[in-house]
Amino acid sequence: MRNNIYTALVHYPVYNRNNDTVATSVTNFDIHDISRTCRTYDIKKYFIITPVDAQQELTKRIIDYWIEGDGIEFNKNRNEAFENTVLETSVQSAVEAIYKNEGKMPRIITTSAKIFENTVSYEDLGKEITTDENPYLILFGTGWGLTEEIMNMSYKILEPIRGKTKYNHLSVRSAVSIILDRLLGEK
Amino acid sequence: MRNNIYTALVHYPVYNRNNDTVATSVTNFDIHDISRTCRTYDIKKYFIITPVDAQQELTKRIIDYWIEGDGIEFNKNRNEAFENTVLETSVQSAVEAIYKNEGKMPRIITTSAKIFENTVSYEDLGKEITTDENPYLILFGTGWGLTEEIMNMSYKILEPIRGKTKYNHLSVRSAVSIILDRLLGEK
Repeated sequence: MRNNIYTALVHYPVYNRNNDTVATSVTNFDIHDISRTCRTYDIKKYFIITPVDAQQELTKRIIDYWIEGDGIEFNKNRNEAFENTVLETSVQSAVEAIYKNEGKMPRIITTSAKIFENTVSYEDLGKEITTDENPYLILFGTGWGLTEEIMNMSYKILEPIRGKTKYNHLSVRSAVSIILDRLLGEK
Repeated sequence: MRNNIYTALVHYPVYNRNNDTVATSVTNFDIHDISRTCRTYDIKKYFIITPVDAQQELTKRIIDYWIEGDGIEFNKNRNEAFENTVLETSVQSAVEAIYKNEGKMPRIITTSAKIFENTVSYEDLGKEITTDENPYLILFGTGWGLTEEIMNMSYKILEPIRGKTKYNHLSVRSAVSIILDRLLGEK
């Protein structure tokens, strides 16, 4: 159903360029841009996932500014964008929050440059998630991508985004925008 | 043709929230994210348009870092992303640069939340620009959008990205990503 689709931006566990598992930093633009995109495509909750205390505090301060603070007066649209943005400490705690809310475990969707047995096209998954009654959680990785441990939780894996070129290094903000538009946009 | 499509991010002339014509500031993320998106979708040149000296200097410093400076060593992908990013002082000078390069004036495309006589769907324009031999220049506004003077230069105007939802306040970085994917992406 269109009304139980969730997204998460995962800052841990992800790989760095040396294939070590690390926690990346939350960036202000990831919070803002992706909140606005998720709101535009009617995402139920956008989880920002980080286990790091200092990062949680920073993220909470930004969200609170727009939800409870001076941001409301300054920019009503931005306040609305943040209404469904939520801090979580782990992928597992986001899954539990969805289960608590929906009474069902979410089906986890990821993206990869590689092809797997459960790779799915945007068209097929778009049809499925708008008709199926299960909640869906679309995970986006930061750094050099989601770890194998998280990838193994995938119900289905989306094809890589391609613009017909060899160059394929979109920002995560751009990738989220394109993926939600392909799955949920008006065509 | 797919090989003569240009984009520009316009910092002047645009409206502010009071409908005054202003020059907005160039932001680092607009340079980075949109360069990466344009490279992914084979945009011939991505023009960053600002007439303000200090803004031009800042923009030039960022581009040069990745094209000629330490950025090359640090991140080859980012260096490639900036190869086609160019500073221009006005929409007119960007148009002239295209004319000089192509021997033809570009057809100017804009987007609007309103419907005009020359409003076009993504599907129709996507077909047109990939078969037509004329160069195209897709203009993106910052602030509260392109001024009427610039809008009047439009050959065609794209439909709003989301006509049916109440919330429609994407960042320009997200809007560029979605628009280029709809026009030029593999489906």
